[in-house]
Amino acid sequence: MNYTTVEVRVRYAETDQMSFVHHSNYLKYFELARLEWLNFLDISYSQLEESGVLMPVVRASAEYIKPLFFDESFKVTVSLIDPPKATLKFQYVVVNSKNIIVCKGETVLAFLSKKTMRPTRCPKILNEKFS
Amino acid sequence: MNYTTVEVRVRYAETDQMSFVHHSNYLKYFELARLEWLNFLDISYSQLEESGVLMPVVRASAEYIKPLFFDESFKVTVSLIDPPKATLKFQYVVVNSKNIIVCKGETVLAFLSKKTMRPTRCPKILNEKFS
Amino acid sequence: MNYTTVEVRVRYAETDQMSFVHHSNYLKYFELARLEWLNFLDISYSQLEESGVLMPVVRASAEYIKPLFFDESFKVTVSLIDPPKATLKFQYVVVNSKNIIVCKGETVLAFLSKKTMRPTRCPKILNEKFS
Amino acid sequence: MNYTTVEVRVRYAETDQMSFVHHSNYLKYFELARLEWLNFLDISYSQLEESGVLMPVVRASAEYIKPLFFDESFKVTVSLIDPPKATLKFQYVVVNSKNIIVCKGETVLAFLSKKTMRPTRCPKILNEKFS
Repeated sequence: MNYTTVEVRVRYAETDQMSFVHHSNYLKYFELARLEWLNFLDISYSQLEESGVLMPVVRASAEYIKPLFFDESFKVTVSLIDPPKATLKFQYVVVNSKNIIVCKGETVLAFLSKKTMRPTRCPKILNEKFS
Repeated sequence: MNYTTVEVRVRYAETDQMSFVHHSNYLKYFELARLEWLNFLDISYSQLEESGVLMPVVRASAEYIKPLFFDESFKVTVSLIDPPKATLKFQYVVVNSKNIIVCKGETVLAFLSKKTMRPTRCPKILNEKFS
Repeated sequence: MNYTTVEVRVRYAETDQMSFVHHSNYLKYFELARLEWLNFLDISYSQLEESGVLMPVVRASAEYIKPLFFDESFKVTVSLIDPPKATLKFQYVVVNSKNIIVCKGETVLAFLSKKTMRPTRCPKILNEKFS
Repeated sequence: MNYTTVEVRVRYAETDQMSFVHHSNYLKYFELARLEWLNFLDISYSQLEESGVLMPVVRASAEYIKPLFFDESFKVTVSLIDPPKATLKFQYVVVNSKNIIVCKGETVLAFLSKKTMRPTRCPKILNEKFS
């Protein structure tokens, strides 16, 4: 149960004055990996939201092992830990173009009803794909 | 018809590897200036959106005169050009802590019905305040 | 003298509560287009910077014609207007996956010596490629 | 050993289409809190960098308890955990304007020599202030 993104290239605006990719951007890289995975599984996150289910991140962590620099390419491998329950737990490994691990991370996502803004069940379509 | 923001401090994440504030951030500075102004005029942009009116930016331009660096303070002066019509046109001047102009810009905002996603009239509350 | 990027997908973090891509992000899209073009021309912007030449944006403008939404794909076509002089002037057209123009823009870049932070000449390598 | 920031207001560009502040922005809020603290202690992070010491984030985590919305005010309380050693460990609590905790987090920062890009000692000035 894992997926590796296509190559992504670091954007200039993602660097900071240290010349490293700013650490907050890795959370965006994790996000694009898990949403690209959903696309790959034929699940449209947009449609999930339209059907009334939001999936906010409720916990996130990252370990920054080596910096990424402007114009470098990287890939993110995302894995689902445990079948879906009240939350979804993903792990991430980001490797640079030399296949060296630059960052590892984890996020936990919850299911929220758009209407009531209260926790709701995991949508059936996710359950089916991830079980 | 103009307003000057409180002092804002450049955030580390807003710099890029040139050590300058990335040029895209000035559009966010313009935005915070005009929304701070609305607050000052007792107009809640959140309430405008809730009442069904979106105000997307339809044109923006900026002239970058001098860089802003991390930890510098700046202020934005925002002015409304012309009374509200089908669009709102704002001009901006950003000065650093030595009162030197670092950036000038302009944005044009439209009014959009959240429901139909089509152009709509300028909300009365804006008309009253800005006329 | 123009170049069209590969397809880029809108990232979730690039949306705002209007559900549109935040207008500041188009300046980042313009940037990735012109840097992808340099790569395509075998010019490394990183090497330009290492050789001591910074290329800050000194003017930018954008016209937002239609919104881009989360998960949409888009392409940016970038063109160089005039051969390089004291500045470089680029124009951009962003089209969505239906090939509809969603945004047009322009940026002017200057050449700055990293050492003196003063204007400098257009690097020879750029001159050769763009003339 | 802790510090609470002045009130900060959520910027429109920090929201995403869920209408929540995008979770990656909290890492930027943590950062502004610890840099504002350094300023308060009369330590200029810019000068630290100029003196050759970079302080990259090597670990970060956040627990998102309640969303923050556009135009809400919040404060961040930052605490130093343990006196400085090879790394600096900070904890953060973000409260909204009703003083309700919306996010908690932790970051670990390392000291890096700008020249060698290798780990270096904690700068004396930090040691003195934080011991």
